[in-house]
Amino acid sequence: MAKVLSDIEIAQQTRLEPIVNIAGKVGLTADDLELYGKYKAKISFDAIKRFSENEDGKLVLVTAITPTPAGEGKTLTTIGLAQALNYMGHKTIVALREPSLGPVFGIKGGAAGGGYSQVLPMEDINLHFTGDMHAITAANNLLAAAIDNHVHQGNALRIDVRRVVWKRVMDMNDRALRHIVVGMGGKVCGFPREDQFMITVASEIMAILCLAHDLMDLKKRMGDIVVAYDLDGNPVRTRQLGVEGAMAILMKDAIKPNLVQTTENTPALVHGGPFANIAHGCNSVVATKLAMKMGDITVTEAGFGADLGAEKFMDIKCRFAGIKPDAVVIVATVRALKMHGGVDKKCLQEENLEALQKGFVNLAKHIDNMRKFDVPVLVGINRFMTDTDEEIALLRQLCRNYGTEAALNNCWAEGGRGGIEMGEKVLKLIEQPRTPYKPLYDIEDTIARKMEIIVKRIYGGAGVVFESNAQKQIKELEKLGLDKMPVCVAKTQYSLSDNPALLGAPSDFTVTVKDVRVCTGAGFIVCQTSNIMTMPGLPKMPAANRMDIDENGVITGLF
Amino acid sequence: MAKVLSDIEIAQQTRLEPIVNIAGKVGLTADDLELYGKYKAKISFDAIKRFSENEDGKLVLVTAITPTPAGEGKTLTTIGLAQALNYMGHKTIVALREPSLGPVFGIKGGAAGGGYSQVLPMEDINLHFTGDMHAITAANNLLAAAIDNHVHQGNALRIDVRRVVWKRVMDMNDRALRHIVVGMGGKVCGFPREDQFMITVASEIMAILCLAHDLMDLKKRMGDIVVAYDLDGNPVRTRQLGVEGAMAILMKDAIKPNLVQTTENTPALVHGGPFANIAHGCNSVVATKLAMKMGDITVTEAGFGADLGAEKFMDIKCRFAGIKPDAVVIVATVRALKMHGGVDKKCLQEENLEALQKGFVNLAKHIDNMRKFDVPVLVGINRFMTDTDEEIALLRQLCRNYGTEAALNNCWAEGGRGGIEMGEKVLKLIEQPRTPYKPLYDIEDTIARKMEIIVKRIYGGAGVVFESNAQKQIKELEKLGLDKMPVCVAKTQYSLSDNPALLGAPSDFTVTVKDVRVCTGAGFIVCQTSNIMTMPGLPKMPAANRMDIDENGVITGLF
Repeated sequence: MAKVLSDIEIAQQTRLEPIVNIAGKVGLTADDLELYGKYKAKISFDAIKRFSENEDGKLVLVTAITPTPAGEGKTLTTIGLAQALNYMGHKTIVALREPSLGPVFGIKGGAAGGGYSQVLPMEDINLHFTGDMHAITAANNLLAAAIDNHVHQGNALRIDVRRVVWKRVMDMNDRALRHIVVGMGGKVCGFPREDQFMITVASEIMAILCLAHDLMDLKKRMGDIVVAYDLDGNPVRTRQLGVEGAMAILMKDAIKPNLVQTTENTPALVHGGPFANIAHGCNSVVATKLAMKMGDITVTEAGFGADLGAEKFMDIKCRFAGIKPDAVVIVATVRALKMHGGVDKKCLQEENLEALQKGFVNLAKHIDNMRKFDVPVLVGINRFMTDTDEEIALLRQLCRNYGTEAALNNCWAEGGRGGIEMGEKVLKLIEQPRTPYKPLYDIEDTIARKMEIIVKRIYGGAGVVFESNAQKQIKELEKLGLDKMPVCVAKTQYSLSDNPALLGAPSDFTVTVKDVRVCTGAGFIVCQTSNIMTMPGLPKMPAANRMDIDENGVITGLF
Repeated sequence: MAKVLSDIEIAQQTRLEPIVNIAGKVGLTADDLELYGKYKAKISFDAIKRFSENEDGKLVLVTAITPTPAGEGKTLTTIGLAQALNYMGHKTIVALREPSLGPVFGIKGGAAGGGYSQVLPMEDINLHFTGDMHAITAANNLLAAAIDNHVHQGNALRIDVRRVVWKRVMDMNDRALRHIVVGMGGKVCGFPREDQFMITVASEIMAILCLAHDLMDLKKRMGDIVVAYDLDGNPVRTRQLGVEGAMAILMKDAIKPNLVQTTENTPALVHGGPFANIAHGCNSVVATKLAMKMGDITVTEAGFGADLGAEKFMDIKCRFAGIKPDAVVIVATVRALKMHGGVDKKCLQEENLEALQKGFVNLAKHIDNMRKFDVPVLVGINRFMTDTDEEIALLRQLCRNYGTEAALNNCWAEGGRGGIEMGEKVLKLIEQPRTPYKPLYDIEDTIARKMEIIVKRIYGGAGVVFESNAQKQIKELEKLGLDKMPVCVAKTQYSLSDNPALLGAPSDFTVTVKDVRVCTGAGFIVCQTSNIMTMPGLPKMPAANRMDIDENGVITGLF
């Protein structure tokens, strides 16, 4: 048996085409590109304007069941499906999120697909890429410095230092920065106050980047951000500090989508990457819409399970962007469904049809949920070597009984050819004309009502409880007229409920909202349920510790 | 009279050549470059290796008198001189430091020369450029996170949390981060301890980048860094935490020099930018040596006055790199010398020959100092519109009486043509064969002795006093065998002494060393005198507040 190659070995063996050739496949000229080396480029807004005249191609959203430590392979499926469709003769583009440095060095390693379905050059994409994350970090922290400087220099706006809601960010997993005290050290160091750092992808600027239409929209939205409240409780916005112009300068290149390629030279737009537990978890509107103008089919993904990423894709991203997917692929694995059926992680390699049948409820719930948005659904089964034929057959049967097609996905080992069954079935689904946009709730509803609809209809819960603090915050937002926006739920990704221990498809639970805050720049209201960490920590043995680079520049240990 | 254009207006009106054409002028092919857009590129180490066979060209160092708020124009002179030499038919390359975002948004605005002597595209160079600063920030902060994570995960190395000497960095002016407490918030947030952020350019990784020969040397040096001491007082190094490989991955592109061009299309290597008050203040060894291999003449600069930047250039950079300048240009202005002669900043536009004569002592001292390194010296007079002919004539006469030539520099208004007198006189100086390298002190001397030599011979002081804390630190470094390295003095740039109020050429002062610490990765010992801020703050009206960008991407307010 041949040695199984690691992701980075496969990546390093792949023959990349110059990015100008990839660009040529979708009608982009060398002048449309700003090159970052030979294999990465940003696409100019002149090109985006030119393409805006084109008709929209079809849009396929890839989402997943509730994730487990067993792994689902959503990004790899997204890439593999796009490769399969290209292989079958359809001009297909994949539109993905950018990885964040923090998780790369933490538990996760890289986040650019896997096996023969990766976006490349994976080393660069997983590291600094074209600098978008760094630009967001800089813009975010310039604003933070301007706030404390304003207070230090006389505080003309009467900012309440107890209510500075804008946080500094760093693209690193660094738990020591979760709770800090800044401004110690006396007069030259400003006024002391409690503070915290978040990881860069949790910055509202990341959410804004992913929802803005262009640089001017980005600047306007950054100006709108509520950064603090004054001593009378009035919101203080970026614009009052006068730094949104400087922030926009820092973001002038970050707003342009990044073009790279997959292991099979399929064009890929990798742009934006907000957290799906704290923010809306989809790649940028600019990139998705451009992909739809350039390709016949665009395949994109939304973070975590369909209760988080896909719900927000439908209710937030599609609402703002005026788009709707023509089909949804829900990625499932036999292993993960067995875990939802009660099997311990250690016993996943043993065939267990009973557990699979039991765990199917999780997949069934996500299928139901997607149907509520009036989109056709396909289940993509990401096959692992330990899955038995009987298990696969049972899963197919369960899907069929549930009125949904399933397709095997072997894109990790075979690239696009491993996704042909998926591709054929997706093509059938998207043949149908697109149905009208059907969001879950009306933004004119109250925050409580919008939250209740999400909990009852998507999570399957009995209701929602707002802690007293959250109730107060809602009243305040209503008073300020800042409540008529979509709701972005911050919730654990490990359960349909807000309790990560509840696998499968729990019911009769209530969701508790602890904190409600407005992202006026992004245009949504975050309802935070459990204690969502906005700054991850490093594990006992960080991925960073196995990484190295040799004198020829060859990197090892990035997955 | 024609409207005087701002730096950014001049920059925007300049017709840039594609960077591949600029590269061609010095023998670089398109394959040697990694493009960052059309006008910036990184140069591959394959190209550097190829050029290493060439003979060294001549090297000219531009330094300055003790800076005053009146302004000297050192970077603009460096660029203007290189343009002049090119104009006169000599293949000349300029090698500069990279600006830091913090000062760009703070008081300083941009830092890429001025008028018709700028490096371009100035907007990009002043902003994210090719991401080197961000790479340093990330590598620095990965190491910081690894330290606190190690303590949190059981502290096998027994790190003394009171003696973690590695600091987090941010490329921003943010005084609120000067003194902080991290690790608050209970068990999941690590162990509380006092900490501080520095600005990125103060990171030892910046100093290492500027002194390393290649990526492997960089990795080795990063592994050598002493990041903390254990409970027994033994140094703990990066290598013991196992993250120098991951840090090197983050730095794989940052170590490659950046190629851009000046307003007159002169090739410019802009690479590295350590603070000259806290670190050694010169651009990278890799870039300077490559420039010397590619060009007949290389013009480079060292930060602040000759007592700081040039001394460190000679005693640290040249010592490590095995190079020596063939001539030194000391930039002086009539205005600044009048300030050194006692004139108030408000009265600088009035002719004052007496004050000029009195203030000349500062320039004379710097001339003396440079002669101690056995290099020929030229004074470059950066002319301001308010300077009278009598003042210029007097300054020339004073220099001549002192045995040194002076040359007028009008490079701000005229570009290279404004530097022809300078160019002619520099050519005469560098005709002579290079004299042997002559550092000020032997690294085998004790720290106290090395410091005494610098204070007495360069600063003109009577001696040096070590506070009790510093004495203790020296004993410890001697015990650890970490004292046989060059000394890098952290000192105010505003005086030859350690007291910023003492202008001119003070004597009979003693310098007080408060803190002595070792940078084992960079390979020098920092002796900190006065309270040097390693994290600047924003002023009352930050430069950021006047910056903007319009829908066409045109930036205003960057100087």
